[in-house]
Amino acid sequence: MLDKLFEGIKPLDSAAIESAQARLDNLVKPPGSLGELECIAAKLTSINGTQNIDISKRCVVIFASDNGVVVEGVASAPQEVTHMQTLNFTKGITGVNVLAKQFHTDLIVVDVGVNADIEHPAIQNKKIRKGTWNIAKQSAMTREEAIQAISTGIETVTNAVENGYTLIGVGEMGIGNTTTTAATLCALTGLPPHQIAGKGAGLSEDNYRNKINIIQSAIERLKPDPADPIDVLTKVGGFDIAAMVGAYIGAAKCQVPVVIDGFISIVAALCAVRLNPLVKEYMFASHASFEQGYKYAAEAVGVTPYLHFNMRLGEGSGCPLMFAMMDAACAVMRDMGTFEQANIGDEYLEEVRDADFHIRGL
Amino acid sequence: MLDKLFEGIKPLDSAAIESAQARLDNLVKPPGSLGELECIAAKLTSINGTQNIDISKRCVVIFASDNGVVVEGVASAPQEVTHMQTLNFTKGITGVNVLAKQFHTDLIVVDVGVNADIEHPAIQNKKIRKGTWNIAKQSAMTREEAIQAISTGIETVTNAVENGYTLIGVGEMGIGNTTTTAATLCALTGLPPHQIAGKGAGLSEDNYRNKINIIQSAIERLKPDPADPIDVLTKVGGFDIAAMVGAYIGAAKCQVPVVIDGFISIVAALCAVRLNPLVKEYMFASHASFEQGYKYAAEAVGVTPYLHFNMRLGEGSGCPLMFAMMDAACAVMRDMGTFEQANIGDEYLEEVRDADFHIRGL
Repeated sequence: MLDKLFEGIKPLDSAAIESAQARLDNLVKPPGSLGELECIAAKLTSINGTQNIDISKRCVVIFASDNGVVVEGVASAPQEVTHMQTLNFTKGITGVNVLAKQFHTDLIVVDVGVNADIEHPAIQNKKIRKGTWNIAKQSAMTREEAIQAISTGIETVTNAVENGYTLIGVGEMGIGNTTTTAATLCALTGLPPHQIAGKGAGLSEDNYRNKINIIQSAIERLKPDPADPIDVLTKVGGFDIAAMVGAYIGAAKCQVPVVIDGFISIVAALCAVRLNPLVKEYMFASHASFEQGYKYAAEAVGVTPYLHFNMRLGEGSGCPLMFAMMDAACAVMRDMGTFEQANIGDEYLEEVRDADFHIRGL
Repeated sequence: MLDKLFEGIKPLDSAAIESAQARLDNLVKPPGSLGELECIAAKLTSINGTQNIDISKRCVVIFASDNGVVVEGVASAPQEVTHMQTLNFTKGITGVNVLAKQFHTDLIVVDVGVNADIEHPAIQNKKIRKGTWNIAKQSAMTREEAIQAISTGIETVTNAVENGYTLIGVGEMGIGNTTTTAATLCALTGLPPHQIAGKGAGLSEDNYRNKINIIQSAIERLKPDPADPIDVLTKVGGFDIAAMVGAYIGAAKCQVPVVIDGFISIVAALCAVRLNPLVKEYMFASHASFEQGYKYAAEAVGVTPYLHFNMRLGEGSGCPLMFAMMDAACAVMRDMGTFEQANIGDEYLEEVRDADFHIRGL
């Protein structure tokens, strides 16, 4: 069953990366001097299969769902905000709407478990259930539901790619999901909740301590198996996180680049990479979330964020910012001149090529 | 004389910042959750005098000049590269050309001291002299030349603003200028050269040690006065750095936002701020240069970079990337909906507004 989910995921073509780097080293700049932009360009070349990279049609997929644990007072906003904000994505007024529009990005909004009846032509109804169960009392979902949510994520991205999208961002909306996400990360890494859990969108000190206790006792009681990410998602995760895991897997299956947003998004990325390490080859970090668990998850995934804006909004809002930076990397690859075009001679080239530092390696 | 240079520089209007923050806090997101994007929007509002910020016509000013110290073997590229690359800016093939084009940015190229005769309609001839003197032997320039270079920078930006530019980036081209810049920073801060000087565009280990020694002995011999940034520029700086100092001052005088690029650019920013602290109010950092001295200069200026790409190209190449992020901040301010439009109620608002953390303060 699970093996089928991963069918067709291939490692990147290292020859394509090398020939991309050869071109980058021949552009009119000291080799490596555009730093990570060069790494991004090389990686995109390999994923895209051409140095004339096309990431022009891009979207952020937003998985919306509710979390039973909110009855424990772990969130600063009432559960209805998940429903309201999911509708707001269709009105163009949210943070991710505005940032997406700025950088020519569409939104694909998928209801995987909002605790309300939503019938809206711009919201895909893939509801698994109206919110998970309360992890303070029992597992969030059944194993079958976790796999269903992952499959939904794969399907969403596969459809998007069939519709011409060449670049995917992974976002979410779900009141209470920093709690389930922190629990998932603690379960996967063994790190203690006080180190991982943050104050979400704006939690008081008392509610914050409560959140930490809830995560700690859920893990102690439910004993999610760190070697089995689906068990972790089942016991302490959420439909949104599981669907996001599927989105990463889907991107890797379809061979399109996929961008990680903030805390929820990177913990889903960690689950995906633990399920199949090859998925990482298609991933790009974006921004360093202000949420304190982000950096531990990024370390565990093995990625380094590029943008440092102390954002903690979620919604996939960091992805369009990164899309703009990826556009810049593509422009470097496509449009810069070579040393020959630049009338800069061979002696220089030899000297800088012998220099003892190159920054490389994504 | 110097007082005249700073005439008309005003502090930002704090009432405008407060009313910008009031609007940002009423947008449909947890207050502060867009982090530094909100700070950038508020600061731009105050500089621009309206919440409908206009930074659409933007340029990077590039000051090109040569440095006498290159005869000491402190640079990996021959001096002719300054001339060649200055011409290449007019051909659209350099790194900054490509990144500028990607983000709708013009280049203004100014020759303040290239060691060649340049007659080109797209290059402003403001040559002070064909390269500075060798700081290993004597002061780089006279005090009058330093002031002339600063005045040229002010004039360049003032003309740009008169021609409609509403956002300025500050870049440079000059083989050997990481040496003069490191010397300038060491002189201003008292930090030792081995901590500040990096390998520039690609220096061998031996040449790197030589570079450190040259900086150390230039400072010991010429004794630049850290309390007098013009003395520092005169003795161990360059025409490019001095003109960049003027560009920052010019932007503050004209009340337009100005973006710092990498190592050379931020050390020029430090000189400008030491000359007049109000200049800082118009400045925005962009990326953290790979060049090791960058972080010490950023600390001394009191700014934090947003973009982390390990770039070390110079040319103002980081500025257009930051322009795109500033566009994003403006879009947030202009286009996001309010809580009222979003059907999210007052109880939520009260709770998150009472929350004990806000990220604020540029």
